[in-house]
Amino acid sequence: MILLSALKKIEIRPIGFVKRTSSNEDARDENLVSTIVLKKDLTKALDGIEEFSHVFIIYWMHKISNTEKKIVQTRGRAGMPPIGIFACRGPIRPNPIGLTLVELVKRKENVLRVRGLDAFDGTPVLDIKPYGRPCDIVANFKAPKRFYEN
Amino acid sequence: MILLSALKKIEIRPIGFVKRTSSNEDARDENLVSTIVLKKDLTKALDGIEEFSHVFIIYWMHKISNTEKKIVQTRGRAGMPPIGIFACRGPIRPNPIGLTLVELVKRKENVLRVRGLDAFDGTPVLDIKPYGRPCDIVANFKAPKRFYEN
Repeated sequence: MILLSALKKIEIRPIGFVKRTSSNEDARDENLVSTIVLKKDLTKALDGIEEFSHVFIIYWMHKISNTEKKIVQTRGRAGMPPIGIFACRGPIRPNPIGLTLVELVKRKENVLRVRGLDAFDGTPVLDIKPYGRPCDIVANFKAPKRFYEN
Repeated sequence: MILLSALKKIEIRPIGFVKRTSSNEDARDENLVSTIVLKKDLTKALDGIEEFSHVFIIYWMHKISNTEKKIVQTRGRAGMPPIGIFACRGPIRPNPIGLTLVELVKRKENVLRVRGLDAFDGTPVLDIKPYGRPCDIVANFKAPKRFYEN
C-alpha cells in the first residue's frame, strides 16, 4: 500500500485565488485585509461560514521555486546547528503549502475578505476550514523562543 | 495571471505516510498515537522539531472519492438550510486535505509519534508545521454550537 502510494503524485486544483491590492507586495502586515475570490461554482460551499470569526486558509506558495531543495536552514547565530524545515514555518519546504489562521471580515457570494493572510497576489487557495474545534486549541504548549523572533 | 494559474493543476508529492496499527480503523480516538514515517532523505528536515510540543499535520485524505462533488451538506435537523463544505471540517471537499493539530510524542530519525491524528493507515502526509506562532492562537473567536457537537 505504502509503496504504491509513494509512486503517485497528488493532483490538486485551486478552489480560488488571493487578490491583494497592496502598494508594497513584500510588506508583512498582520492587519492587511486580502480578498479571496472563489470559483463561481463553489459559491454555495461558503454557506454558513459567516457564523465563524476565524478560518484557516490553506494555499500554494506559487512564487517559491520548486528547484530549491533545501531541507534545513541556518540559524541566526553562528555555531548553532541548522534547523530542519519541518521545525520552521518558512516558505521553502518540499511542498510549498501555506497555512494561516485569519480573521473572517466579510463574505459576499463567492468572495471573502480576510485579515492577516500574508500571501502574494494571485496565490492559489487550496482549502478553507473554519476554526474553533476543541482540538484546534491547545491550552499548554511548548515552542522555542526563536519561534517568536522570526 | 489568474487565468493562467487557473488552468494549472498543482502537483504535490507526499513527504511520508501515516502508519496506524489500530484494531479498529474507523474508531475515532483523540488519544490514539499514530506514527508518521517520513521519506529517508527528509530525515534532517525534522531537526529541531523536538523543541515543540505540538505540530500541524497536513495530509491527503486518500480514501475520499474524487468523484464526489458535494459542495454542501445537510444539517442534522430537518428544515435547516444546508451548510457549505467550507463551513465544515468534514472530509468531503474539493481537495480532500486534512489538517490536524497533534501532540508530538517522540521523534526518532525519520519517524514521528503523534497523539490525536485521526487519519487512516497509509495516508499521505503533505507537510508538517510547528505550532505556536502568535498568529496561530486566537484569544477570542466565534464558532457556532454545532461545531462542537460533531
